[in-house]
Amino acid sequence: MVSYPNGTKKNKKCPNSKNFANRGMTLEAMINHTNEYYLDLNLANIHKKPTPITIVKVDYPSRDKAKITEAYFKIPSTTDYNGVYRGKAIDFEAKECKSKTSFPLALIHPHQIKHLDNVLYHQAVAFILLRFTYYDETYYIEAKKVVAFYYNSSRKSLSYKWVKENGYLIPFSLTPPIDYLKVIDKLYFQEEIKWLLKN
Amino acid sequence: MVSYPNGTKKNKKCPNSKNFANRGMTLEAMINHTNEYYLDLNLANIHKKPTPITIVKVDYPSRDKAKITEAYFKIPSTTDYNGVYRGKAIDFEAKECKSKTSFPLALIHPHQIKHLDNVLYHQAVAFILLRFTYYDETYYIEAKKVVAFYYNSSRKSLSYKWVKENGYLIPFSLTPPIDYLKVIDKLYFQEEIKWLLKN
Repeated sequence: MVSYPNGTKKNKKCPNSKNFANRGMTLEAMINHTNEYYLDLNLANIHKKPTPITIVKVDYPSRDKAKITEAYFKIPSTTDYNGVYRGKAIDFEAKECKSKTSFPLALIHPHQIKHLDNVLYHQAVAFILLRFTYYDETYYIEAKKVVAFYYNSSRKSLSYKWVKENGYLIPFSLTPPIDYLKVIDKLYFQEEIKWLLKN
Repeated sequence: MVSYPNGTKKNKKCPNSKNFANRGMTLEAMINHTNEYYLDLNLANIHKKPTPITIVKVDYPSRDKAKITEAYFKIPSTTDYNGVYRGKAIDFEAKECKSKTSFPLALIHPHQIKHLDNVLYHQAVAFILLRFTYYDETYYIEAKKVVAFYYNSSRKSLSYKWVKENGYLIPFSLTPPIDYLKVIDKLYFQEEIKWLLKN
């Protein structure tokens, strides 16, 4: 077996999809921009959690600088993003998909599905942001739908058709790039917002 | 200037206090146990966030193992703990204090004070768990009180007396060790719980 000392690594399971959280590419950048925008405009306080790692060894090359010299990535037990909006707990995971036809559920850790199910039980606003790069489209899918599909369907992936029917396409916008609060407003706060606009 | 290659480091600022988040000692362990207990009993979903670090170099000694060989600690821009309880966003920081008389506010990063102020604006349940190890007492202090003190008082530390008067002593319990939901119930959900008990 050949090892890859220079770090190139092939994703055997799904060559057409990538786990966004691990590679730090466009969707993550877009969500980070969006969250900064929400923070700057005092609309919401939502952050990406740091990558969970196990630290094994730390050196102190100078008095005021600690250098981690051995650490390993851990499998995340929760989702990547959470925070607060209008008092409600917000909790979501973001995934990017290069395939034109479907998103393999194997790219979401079973821990994360369990976590989404659990925060739903505690009444959080929980969802997945799924981006089909080919179509340049990002969908908001309520966690309850993904969790139900995961536990009840014999299929192992969400088809693009299913996502179009069950998710909400996030309207295109430059600032912020992924305006997912628009969808949350529609799903959870329509009455409250109407009332605020009237009064 | 002598460097400390073996990692021992003295806290020059405050020999009597320690930043819990950075050293992983008793209070952190107690809160983690408490959060696991809440999770197991389906009472709440609250987690400690991973330590934020900047990864500089990753090696791949074998195909399936990534080894981080150079990384540095980052100053946290948010608090250490957050999650969801009865739909509300929960957000808090935990600090331990060895001093008998006061807790220096310099041990909370200005970013974190700003963060607590901001999540309060968005109606999260925000607080600080402050443990005086000498007395074996842990207090729940509402973030609004700490933030107001931080911005308005000329004093740079919270005296033990102030904490006793303004905080809530968390009742002693073995399981879970730091039952802070009891305080949240009293402050936010008393009516709701009464109603549930009646119906």
